[in-house]
Amino acid sequence: MYYLSLYYVCRKDVMATIYDLAKALGVSQTTVANALKGKSNVSVETRRRVLEYAQKVGYRPNVLARALTQRRTLTLAFMLPTIANPFYPEIAEEIECIARKHNYQVVFCNTHNDGELGRQYLDRLVSRWVDGVIVMGLSMNLADLEAQFQQSLPIVLCDWQENEQSAIIPQVSVDFKLAGQLAARHLLTLGHRRMAIIVDLPLQTLRFEGFRLTLEEAGLQLAPEMIQQGNSELASGYSAAQRLFALEHPPTAIFAANDWMAIGAMEAAYDMGLQVPRDVSIIGLDDIVVSAHMRPPLTTIAISKQQLAKAATELLLKQLNKIEDIASSVLVPPTLLPRPSTTVPPVDGEKQNA
Amino acid sequence: MYYLSLYYVCRKDVMATIYDLAKALGVSQTTVANALKGKSNVSVETRRRVLEYAQKVGYRPNVLARALTQRRTLTLAFMLPTIANPFYPEIAEEIECIARKHNYQVVFCNTHNDGELGRQYLDRLVSRWVDGVIVMGLSMNLADLEAQFQQSLPIVLCDWQENEQSAIIPQVSVDFKLAGQLAARHLLTLGHRRMAIIVDLPLQTLRFEGFRLTLEEAGLQLAPEMIQQGNSELASGYSAAQRLFALEHPPTAIFAANDWMAIGAMEAAYDMGLQVPRDVSIIGLDDIVVSAHMRPPLTTIAISKQQLAKAATELLLKQLNKIEDIASSVLVPPTLLPRPSTTVPPVDGEKQNA
Repeated sequence: MYYLSLYYVCRKDVMATIYDLAKALGVSQTTVANALKGKSNVSVETRRRVLEYAQKVGYRPNVLARALTQRRTLTLAFMLPTIANPFYPEIAEEIECIARKHNYQVVFCNTHNDGELGRQYLDRLVSRWVDGVIVMGLSMNLADLEAQFQQSLPIVLCDWQENEQSAIIPQVSVDFKLAGQLAARHLLTLGHRRMAIIVDLPLQTLRFEGFRLTLEEAGLQLAPEMIQQGNSELASGYSAAQRLFALEHPPTAIFAANDWMAIGAMEAAYDMGLQVPRDVSIIGLDDIVVSAHMRPPLTTIAISKQQLAKAATELLLKQLNKIEDIASSVLVPPTLLPRPSTTVPPVDGEKQNA
Repeated sequence: MYYLSLYYVCRKDVMATIYDLAKALGVSQTTVANALKGKSNVSVETRRRVLEYAQKVGYRPNVLARALTQRRTLTLAFMLPTIANPFYPEIAEEIECIARKHNYQVVFCNTHNDGELGRQYLDRLVSRWVDGVIVMGLSMNLADLEAQFQQSLPIVLCDWQENEQSAIIPQVSVDFKLAGQLAARHLLTLGHRRMAIIVDLPLQTLRFEGFRLTLEEAGLQLAPEMIQQGNSELASGYSAAQRLFALEHPPTAIFAANDWMAIGAMEAAYDMGLQVPRDVSIIGLDDIVVSAHMRPPLTTIAISKQQLAKAATELLLKQLNKIEDIASSVLVPPTLLPRPSTTVPPVDGEKQNA
């Protein structure tokens, strides 16, 4: 009885139970259950009758109840920090496409960069309702995640906070230090000497360090006024760029540490009568879809959404399939994607606003 | 025994059960259950001991099992047709913010405009795991949804297919006919006479009809070559605009039936050496976030994401709260949002390519 009781559906008025099927067909509940499962101890004719009738009355085993017995739901969760920055929906789409090939569905949970909200999702929804979780970006409490992981919830951290590492949860990261280096080298190669960065510290520390150290290796110091704080949002890139353009000696090139802020910086340039890239070069980081469609198209350090999603999903599938030999971390390299928003500095950089 | 068995947790190795708690504390399982529920037939001291110990060992009632008994999960699903067009993530964010104020979590499911995938989400996940569903946009089979709705799953259709209506499921729609009218009136007011439309037919029939009929009322016929088929994606707007610019008499203004296609059309103009709006005016529909940040910023017929999300979520909450008096449909009016991508036609429109 206990076993069968699990087959009761969640909403009581939804549809027939195994009991109803058995009663209508004049066979035992066990026979119905076995027929539905395709077990060989049921005759072909009986199985046909059961399936036909089950279809007729709309019988379907209750996923919720089945999850309780089979302990799986074929559903994964992707927790993302914000759905407003297009970078994350693009990753979500990739993860879902890969997971689907392995018969998993993916639901997306938006934590709004809010640790408490993230914990609620994990508690109320994710930790019991899904077979595994990919957690991306900021604002989840690592200790909460590690506790769930140790209680056997498969988890992968993807593009996790740069200034924090988990010793136990498998992790896919972007080599952000290299990203900063690539941005600096690109601008140096073009001939820029007076460069600025718009960056969301301390979250984007690695890319900042990569940028700063590469300039130092070239004999250039990043002056304090050339380091402008953003909050990863477009509007913060706009106002940070305004502050830079208002300097007595404005930069000839700006590295905005994500595309969203770079787009804001381009807009600020435009609104202040500056032409990109003639008066100022701007380079971003991420390669979100719209960056290619800006005027001018935005040079960026591209993060491969495909590589990130593939690595994260594969690490999760390995956990789900109890494969022991799992890499503890995967590092995805960024690449320079030159587009028209960067060029050589103005002939007389000092006079660009003149 | 059956009742208590529901409290067994889904992953067997996760944490303590009521049985474990009862054994460790030397009380009955019923006492533990009553203490956890705060029932008055348990002494204050016993309750304190139970709660203290439950917290210590990390006991938490199983959400899955609780859903079976309480028949609710405080989780809603938002099924969206594509996460790649920023319009939908923006709506998702709004829905989630409103739902959260009512203690509901929202998971997002991406149907990829694929009716079969949508059905799988509905079957495997949505219909049993969530308390209600908002279904947006295209590519769900209406009959599947209506069957679920009749089996008591609360559902709201949001921005549903223009060429199909449900007689039973509450619905939030955009007045797309008015949107087409507004676009036409804006261009007519600016003085345009030779206009084109890029449109995803038959899905966007209403906005097309609104546009076409408004031109007719002004004595203008939309010639067949001025109607270019798109598929709602950016790239289709690009190639449709290329075809328009290659005409012997290209249009002086283009209404792209969504912003994503309008951005593609702007890019095509740029790549063909045309200046927007000097050589050609372009107007979109949706008002996605990036449209304001294009060069030039895109004139559009704005759909209020807030209004859509609010109306849809409220209709769903009313169903969840068994409020009988529910509007069967809500119509959200669009508004014209003029920006620099539209202006008066070129002095000699015929010669714009000269």
